[in-house]
Amino acid sequence: MSKINVTLGIDIGGTNTVLGLVTKEGECIKKSCIPTNAMDTAEDLFKRIFAEFEVLLPAADGNYNLVGIGIGAPNANYYSGCVENPPNLNWGTVNIIELVKKFKDVPTALTNDANAAALGELKFGVARGMKNFIEMTLGTGLGSGIVVDGKLLYGHDGFAGEIGHTIAVRDGRKCGCGRKGCLEAYVSAGGIKRTVFELLVQSSDRSVLRDISYNELTSKKIYEAAVNGDKIANTAFKVTGKYLGESLADSVAHLSPEAIVLFGGLSQAGDLLLDSVKKNLENSLLNIFKGKVKILVSGLPEGDAAVLGSGALIWHELNNQ
Amino acid sequence: MSKINVTLGIDIGGTNTVLGLVTKEGECIKKSCIPTNAMDTAEDLFKRIFAEFEVLLPAADGNYNLVGIGIGAPNANYYSGCVENPPNLNWGTVNIIELVKKFKDVPTALTNDANAAALGELKFGVARGMKNFIEMTLGTGLGSGIVVDGKLLYGHDGFAGEIGHTIAVRDGRKCGCGRKGCLEAYVSAGGIKRTVFELLVQSSDRSVLRDISYNELTSKKIYEAAVNGDKIANTAFKVTGKYLGESLADSVAHLSPEAIVLFGGLSQAGDLLLDSVKKNLENSLLNIFKGKVKILVSGLPEGDAAVLGSGALIWHELNNQ
Repeated sequence: MSKINVTLGIDIGGTNTVLGLVTKEGECIKKSCIPTNAMDTAEDLFKRIFAEFEVLLPAADGNYNLVGIGIGAPNANYYSGCVENPPNLNWGTVNIIELVKKFKDVPTALTNDANAAALGELKFGVARGMKNFIEMTLGTGLGSGIVVDGKLLYGHDGFAGEIGHTIAVRDGRKCGCGRKGCLEAYVSAGGIKRTVFELLVQSSDRSVLRDISYNELTSKKIYEAAVNGDKIANTAFKVTGKYLGESLADSVAHLSPEAIVLFGGLSQAGDLLLDSVKKNLENSLLNIFKGKVKILVSGLPEGDAAVLGSGALIWHELNNQ
Repeated sequence: MSKINVTLGIDIGGTNTVLGLVTKEGECIKKSCIPTNAMDTAEDLFKRIFAEFEVLLPAADGNYNLVGIGIGAPNANYYSGCVENPPNLNWGTVNIIELVKKFKDVPTALTNDANAAALGELKFGVARGMKNFIEMTLGTGLGSGIVVDGKLLYGHDGFAGEIGHTIAVRDGRKCGCGRKGCLEAYVSAGGIKRTVFELLVQSSDRSVLRDISYNELTSKKIYEAAVNGDKIANTAFKVTGKYLGESLADSVAHLSPEAIVLFGGLSQAGDLLLDSVKKNLENSLLNIFKGKVKILVSGLPEGDAAVLGSGALIWHELNNQ
């Protein structure tokens, strides 16, 4: 019996790195999650990734053959194969394609983690069949992948789609990128935490969140408080949705997408966040766009989506060879 | 001798409408300018356009044959052939392609006036050979045409590229579109005028502009005052450039263009405006984009560019048939 071809999809996040074996049909056969250890080097991470892969491949039932590797990573450049000074990782600039070759010599492609998620959504998620959409990945940071005319938008030097680093508030909160007021500083795990603390200062409402320190507060705790009727927590989701909805109106003015797909962490809060995003987007849109842009939540399982996207990236390359 | 094929390029602006005969090689053989009369109907305008065309064609030396019509107009939809509630014209929604058929039954294509200018720039201007750039048209309003991968970006329903209606100042100046704080309300002929009046209020500097009423003030008068050393006028250009540069940093984050081309009215002010745009764009860019994006002034003669663009649009369609 001939072996079944699979690609290795790798999604490198600020906190965790997920890897998985992806078939041509978009099935994630086996996957694993390891900590990224953001302060370590890229080489350290890939050493651990391929150690994990050596466990993963035999563990998959069946006879699989690795034909390519697709990688999604922050600040990744599709054209150069480099990750360039990622804001949440202590890497500097690294040529990832060359680094991977030291471990496995198969066709490898690299893109922004959010671009990979967008590709996963396009091939296997709620954006199937769409020609123009935006994928927003709400995680440690705020990523975005833009699909125009059925293809990922890379722009002149491969870095298009950084909506998380458009300015939501001029001279606003300090962002990890070194500038001030980026949307990411308002709409992300860290962003909603900062909003909670702002609300704790401004309001005198009781809140269970007044018993949690800044370092201990997580978006999961904010979500749980909101579900239990905590007013500050609920307002924090509304405010986060307002920032996102208002900013996305500017993205629509640029791109006229059919839909905006929300993926990851905060998007799992469902209507707590979504109602506010939809209302504020709609109120902020230029007339010609009103009522035309769908806000969707990713149809892919949280853990699989990015791996499927990274896997889809290299399948896409292999098919076009 | 066989006739030479030409297209009729029509550029409909808030103030003037320019029409011209354009060869396949991008030569504008003959052109004419008529007032748009924004309060009249679209049918009134096209009646006058084709009356002017009947004068234009015989006036051109040589034997020309009309093979198509390309039109650039505000709020024009390439897909539907309609102009939909243009902010500066009293038209409502009109199917322009059908309207034109009443006068001339030749292949006709319609796009946003700024998209037409971008196409002109791509085919015959400073963006020749570029795959990714943004054309900003600074006129009565502020238009933009976005080129991605060598093609105009239309998006899902044909209205992509409305950078003039991204929000420069949340809850800022009232815009013609009905919302508040659009970039167009700051960076346009009307925008710089409003900035001058703001400066006249805030500062106590002497200025020749203190002798001119709001209705009498034009961007030309502001330019002349600036050239003559008027401090308020100079500051108005700097402030206008700041708004534009800061906002364009967000456009770069979306699109990663090779260049941003400034076209029309205000861009003719040269370094008075450009120095400020460049400085503020560069200061506002996300690190990965710094030093990578060119700011250029359109290489096409002001009057011809939009007509060449509209002409190029229908030549492009005819070539692809």
